[in-house]
Amino acid sequence: MNILLSGKFEAAEHHDWLRSLRAALPEAHWLDREQALAQVDSVQVAVVANPPAGSLGGLPRLRLIQSLWAGVDRLLADPTLPAGVPIARMVDPAMNAAMAQTALWATLSLHRGFFENAVAQRAALWLPQTQRRADTLQVLVLGLGQMGQAAATCIARQGYRVHGFSLHPRSAAAAPAGIECHSDMDALFALLPLCHIVINLLPLTAATRGLLDAHFFARLPKGAAIVNLARGAHVVDADLLAALDRGQLRHAVLDVFHTEPLPVDHAFWAHPRVTVLPHVAALTDPASASLVVAQNVRALMSGRPLAHLVRPADGY
Amino acid sequence: MNILLSGKFEAAEHHDWLRSLRAALPEAHWLDREQALAQVDSVQVAVVANPPAGSLGGLPRLRLIQSLWAGVDRLLADPTLPAGVPIARMVDPAMNAAMAQTALWATLSLHRGFFENAVAQRAALWLPQTQRRADTLQVLVLGLGQMGQAAATCIARQGYRVHGFSLHPRSAAAAPAGIECHSDMDALFALLPLCHIVINLLPLTAATRGLLDAHFFARLPKGAAIVNLARGAHVVDADLLAALDRGQLRHAVLDVFHTEPLPVDHAFWAHPRVTVLPHVAALTDPASASLVVAQNVRALMSGRPLAHLVRPADGY
Repeated sequence: MNILLSGKFEAAEHHDWLRSLRAALPEAHWLDREQALAQVDSVQVAVVANPPAGSLGGLPRLRLIQSLWAGVDRLLADPTLPAGVPIARMVDPAMNAAMAQTALWATLSLHRGFFENAVAQRAALWLPQTQRRADTLQVLVLGLGQMGQAAATCIARQGYRVHGFSLHPRSAAAAPAGIECHSDMDALFALLPLCHIVINLLPLTAATRGLLDAHFFARLPKGAAIVNLARGAHVVDADLLAALDRGQLRHAVLDVFHTEPLPVDHAFWAHPRVTVLPHVAALTDPASASLVVAQNVRALMSGRPLAHLVRPADGY
Repeated sequence: MNILLSGKFEAAEHHDWLRSLRAALPEAHWLDREQALAQVDSVQVAVVANPPAGSLGGLPRLRLIQSLWAGVDRLLADPTLPAGVPIARMVDPAMNAAMAQTALWATLSLHRGFFENAVAQRAALWLPQTQRRADTLQVLVLGLGQMGQAAATCIARQGYRVHGFSLHPRSAAAAPAGIECHSDMDALFALLPLCHIVINLLPLTAATRGLLDAHFFARLPKGAAIVNLARGAHVVDADLLAALDRGQLRHAVLDVFHTEPLPVDHAFWAHPRVTVLPHVAALTDPASASLVVAQNVRALMSGRPLAHLVRPADGY
C-alpha cells in the first residue's frame, strides 16, 4: 500500500513521524510528493500536516486525506483541495491530555496570582496575593470537542465551577457530567458576566473568527482573564490590548497568533499582562497519533466507517 | 468561655479571623494578651498564630494551645512555652487544597517548560519546548502529612508517577493508593536518581533541617527540579545556587526562605532558574480553619480526644 506523506516538517520531526508511522502501519510504503506523482494510480491515502497548497492535486484515486493536526482550517483553505475526498482530523489522546494540562496550568496560574507574582519577582517585590477557594471561580470553556472536553473535565476535577459552550448542541450533549453547557450565542453572552476565566478551544470557522473582540471582553466581569489555545484569528488583537490596558481584563495567556512565530515587534511580547506561548499548548504525539492513522487507514481498506471526519459544511 | 487570641496579624487579617472565629464558636469571648492577664484563671485555651515569645506565660489554667498555622516550629522554639500543655497544629481542608494546587502548578510548569518559556518571552524568543507524556516523569513528594498526601494524590491523578517519603512509617502507610512510599533515609537516597521533580512538604525538625543540600542534589538526575513549599531552613541556599549554576538542577520553585520576606539583595530574586513565591503556597482559610478550632475547643470542654496534637518528641 502506498501512502503520500506531505507536510512542513523539520528533519528530526520528519524522522520521528516516519518511524512512528512505519511502526503503526508496517504494510505501508510512505511516498513523498514526487514519488506519488510517479505512481498516481497507487495512492489512495494522503497523510498530511499543513501541506503546501496544491500538493494533494493529481491523485485521481485518493480516498482519504488524514490530517496529523487537529486543526484543519489551513488545509480546508487550499483552493486546490480535491473535491469529495473525505478528510479526517487528528484526535490524539496524548494531545488531548497535553491540552488539558495547559488549560489547567493557565487556570491555576490565574487563580493563584502566579503571573502577577512573576512580575513582582522581577522587581524583587515580596507581594503576597490573597487566596480564594477554587469553587469561588467560574471557568468557561469555549469548544467541547475532544480537547475542550478533556480540559473542562480536568479543571472541574480541581474544584472550579466550569461552564461549557459548543457551536453544536450535539457536542454540548456530550459534555462531561456536572458541567453546564450552552450552544447558542445568546446564552453564551448571557453567561459571560459570571465568568472569571475564559478558555478558547473552538475550531476556527466563519462563525468563530474574531469572536474574542471588544464586545465579548466588555461582557466579562472586570478583571477576567482570557486563555486562547485555539487559533490566533479568534482574537481581535487591538481589542484585547485595549481591554488589558484599561484593566477590563487582568491577563491573557496566548498560545496562538495571527502570524506565527509572533513577530518580534508585536506588543504581546513585552506586555506585563500577556503570557506568550510559542504554539505548544498541545502537540500531536507521533507514537499515539500514528496508531490513530493506522486505525483509519485499515478502516478504509476494509470498508468500515472512518473516524473523525471533517464536516465541510461546519468548516471543521 | 474566654479564649486568648495571640499572633502577628495585619489589621484586616485580624478582623477576618475574629469574624470567622466568632461565627464558628459563638459561645466564646476572644481576649488579647492584656485582657487575658487581667483574668488569668478564666483562660483555658489559647489560639495562636506565631505569637511573640513569652505571650503564653502566666496562664496557670491553660489546657490547650491551638495553632492557626500548620507549621509549629517557631512556636515550639519559644523557650517560655508552658510545659505540659497540649499543642494542636492546624489541619485545614482549604489549606490542603491550596497546597495541592501550588504543588500541581509547579509540576505542570516544570513538566511543560513554562518557566523556560517565560524567560524566552522576555527576549521575544519563539522557542517551542518538546512535549513529554506525564507518565514519563517521576515526582517525589517529601512529607506525607495532610498537605503532602493532598499534593501527591492531586499530582498522581494527572498521570505523573509519584513517590512518597515520610519520616515515619505510620504516615507512609496512610499514603494514597498507587503511590509507592518510603520512610527511611537509605531508601530515600536510593530513590533520588529516578526523580525528575522533588516537592518538599516535610516538617522542619532536627532530622530535616538542611536535608536539601549538595549531597541530596548530587543524587538527583542531571536537570532535576526542586520545589520547596515547607520551610526555608530545609534548603542549604549556597548548595542550591551551585547546583543550579552548574546545570545539575534545572529549576527551583521556592515559597519559603531562611529570612522572610526574602532580602532584596538575595541571589534567588534575579536568578533565571529560580521562581520566588512570597510564602503563599497555602494560606490558612479563616472560615474553614475556625471550624477546626471550634471542634477542638468543644472536644476539650466535653472531655473528648483532641485532634492534630503535636508530638513534642518528633518536633511537629
